Amino acid sequence: MERDRIPEAVIRRLPKYYRYLSEQLRAGEERVSSSGMSRDMGLNASQIRRDLNCFGGFGQQGYGYNIEKLRGEIMRIMGIDARQRMVIIGAGNIGQALAGYGGFAREGFLAVGLFDTDSTVIGQRVSELVVRPVAELAAFLRRQPVQVGVICTPAAAAQETADRLVQGGVRGIWNFAPCDVQVKAGVAVENVHLNDSLFVLSYRLREDGSEG
Amino acid sequence: MERDRIPEAVIRRLPKYYRYLSEQLRAGEERVSSSGMSRDMGLNASQIRRDLNCFGGFGQQGYGYNIEKLRGEIMRIMGIDARQRMVIIGAGNIGQALAGYGGFAREGFLAVGLFDTDSTVIGQRVSELVVRPVAELAAFLRRQPVQVGVICTPAAAAQETADRLVQGGVRGIWNFAPCDVQVKAGVAVENVHLNDSLFVLSYRLREDGSEG
Repeated sequence: MERDRIPEAVIRRLPKYYRYLSEQLRAGEERVSSSGMSRDMGLNASQIRRDLNCFGGFGQQGYGYNIEKLRGEIMRIMGIDARQRMVIIGAGNIGQALAGYGGFAREGFLAVGLFDTDSTVIGQRVSELVVRPVAELAAFLRRQPVQVGVICTPAAAAQETADRLVQGGVRGIWNFAPCDVQVKAGVAVENVHLNDSLFVLSYRLREDGSEG
Repeated sequence: MERDRIPEAVIRRLPKYYRYLSEQLRAGEERVSSSGMSRDMGLNASQIRRDLNCFGGFGQQGYGYNIEKLRGEIMRIMGIDARQRMVIIGAGNIGQALAGYGGFAREGFLAVGLFDTDSTVIGQRVSELVVRPVAELAAFLRRQPVQVGVICTPAAAAQETADRLVQGGVRGIWNFAPCDVQVKAGVAVENVHLNDSLFVLSYRLREDGSEG
């Protein structure tokens, strides 16, 4: 079945639906209406219905949504119903934190390698991983399929790292470096620019202050 | 002067302009045209002009933008021309990484306190900070003004942490917990939901794969 391109804003809301439905499931709930979701999530009920209709529409008039089914469908759509393997490049503060964070593995994203160029950190153990030299990345990627490459290098090394990952067959780049990276078509990039996020917060602080 | 509300998308692009202009300045450039910015940043030139017009318009026909002046103006607008003080609550992987990351201090955001409830980490040194008990947060906030509170706790403790910060007078919440928090009007919240970002990447991986 050919699907229309899903709008960016809808894609960005999918994880929020997933998070909400997971909480409801843990709380023992079985079904939820779009108006109930609207109240709890602070989204417009008709927007919720429109969003979920993008993926086929799972609601039933007068019944609402079966939480487990809807959650499973959203997991399938997001591709988190299967295990994915990640390598992390850059074993500085952020790289080590991501390697040690159990929250990704719980959602099926397994960090299988941690790499750096700095000989003082190579060989160190971080959580379940030992830091390897970046020079071994290509051989590592030949030995095992890796879906996601996490860039935690300084800005100056980010593009080269992206190139190495893509050359090694990685098609998903999660970029924490404070710069953008260019990749060929067919490779997905998701940026987490922490400074940008902090600046937006700073802007809002000033904005609210000037209103008061 | 009363300003119109700046659209969300424009606010989110401001840090990218700032990043780009900083790079240009470091490279020794003095001025840039909107078409040059368009080429380098991959944004539409008329969108760039519209964005910058939201803040007063600093370009001159036939000359372009003075990089240092425009960058300074964007810093002022984002409120990063003054020092801001941050406390970090939760000294787990992410909290420790943020406390140790020098990139925020370089932009004027100084981490002045790191707090946790876990007696096994309280007293530990992380970068320049010593982990303090959360019970001391209120007294700490009475002693010194803090603009930004960073929530790096598990989801279950996030709302309580937000409440403590807001009660202590903090008006900017940078939330890394995998859940949303509710705050009163006049308090700004910026979320960094790492799992959500990873799920969006996962979605794009599947999307690209199904096209191939």
